[in-house]
Amino acid sequence: MTPILTAFKAAPDRGRGLARDMRARWALEELGVPYEVRLVTFAEMKEAAHLALQPFGQIPTYEDGEVVLFESGAIVLHLAERHEGMLPKDAAGRGRAISWMFAALNTVEPPLVEREIMLREERDKPWFEARAGQVEVRARRPLGELSRRLGDADWLEGDFSAGDLMMIAVLFRARGSGILDAYPNLAAYVARGQARPAFQRAFEAQLAVFRAVSGEA
Amino acid sequence: MTPILTAFKAAPDRGRGLARDMRARWALEELGVPYEVRLVTFAEMKEAAHLALQPFGQIPTYEDGEVVLFESGAIVLHLAERHEGMLPKDAAGRGRAISWMFAALNTVEPPLVEREIMLREERDKPWFEARAGQVEVRARRPLGELSRRLGDADWLEGDFSAGDLMMIAVLFRARGSGILDAYPNLAAYVARGQARPAFQRAFEAQLAVFRAVSGEA
Repeated sequence: MTPILTAFKAAPDRGRGLARDMRARWALEELGVPYEVRLVTFAEMKEAAHLALQPFGQIPTYEDGEVVLFESGAIVLHLAERHEGMLPKDAAGRGRAISWMFAALNTVEPPLVEREIMLREERDKPWFEARAGQVEVRARRPLGELSRRLGDADWLEGDFSAGDLMMIAVLFRARGSGILDAYPNLAAYVARGQARPAFQRAFEAQLAVFRAVSGEA
Repeated sequence: MTPILTAFKAAPDRGRGLARDMRARWALEELGVPYEVRLVTFAEMKEAAHLALQPFGQIPTYEDGEVVLFESGAIVLHLAERHEGMLPKDAAGRGRAISWMFAALNTVEPPLVEREIMLREERDKPWFEARAGQVEVRARRPLGELSRRLGDADWLEGDFSAGDLMMIAVLFRARGSGILDAYPNLAAYVARGQARPAFQRAFEAQLAVFRAVSGEA
């Protein structure tokens, strides 16, 4: 059975590839797995049928007949386990790649999301200036450590892995805010990810949804 | 080889089981795997030897001769894959358990941490009252969805799994703030986790470190 993802019918990012279905699409493209997409509206995401798949009313979900998954981390890991090319076969390499996946989602992303929310919702608040410094420090700390660790390597541990996919997807979402300007090797790392044909196919696919639904060219 | 975890030499939570080594200890106890602990000071966590294991200078790390892991999510997943009892063998059940692990770490925990930081660092700021409402909304939204999904079940998907372990560990850390009072079934879910003999052994082990290091009884 062809796997089915769910994705936003009306993506709030207007097709900039920032929604979390991009991570699953990218993994599917890296691994050469054909897939289908079922688009859901915000209202549908809160209905019982979708909540049965995704208890938090989010996208993406993944169904392949055998399994029903939610959380982009779980979907990417499942795909990387089932198909060759994104997870080393040796236990040591596999463990490192999975460690980087969790680091992307639980160490690097949360303070970046906190900063994103602040920039979106608190810019005009009287406390913005007083608060922004600490939020910036929290968001930059893991980036500095990641930058030092990556150095001038292409990828985090030898060949491109599911750990790189998840880390680059997290950084890709933050890069529009300029926070990567202070870390040229991280900016180059994201650019290397974006240059991969699989990333480009995934990006075009999600952009095509936005264009079709919005009627924008 | 006996696995080795790293943990705080001087736990900032004073042995309340809130540090992330608790998650790895709990998993090791559930699975009946003997382990050793290497204690590290805050200074040692930022030194090259530890950064080679943990690029972000955090605890825990896990070494078993074959693999070197970081991130509690990766450690718990590795243990659950290697030993029987916390990950269903069928693909569907396995996928659900892993989805819940990622949900704990990337959907439920980040807004709880944001709230924890606010309560710790912004209580005396002039903007606290104005800002607290939205932070509370963000932290409660996934808890409400989780509460509805759990209902009156003991665990998230049938038997206790690595997904429950990670979710309960995340909720356990937040429970001291009173946020679970509005969700009696989540409070009971955490209490069920705490009542497990493996949780208790893990808790006592990390408390013993604090007592020995601090000289407190």
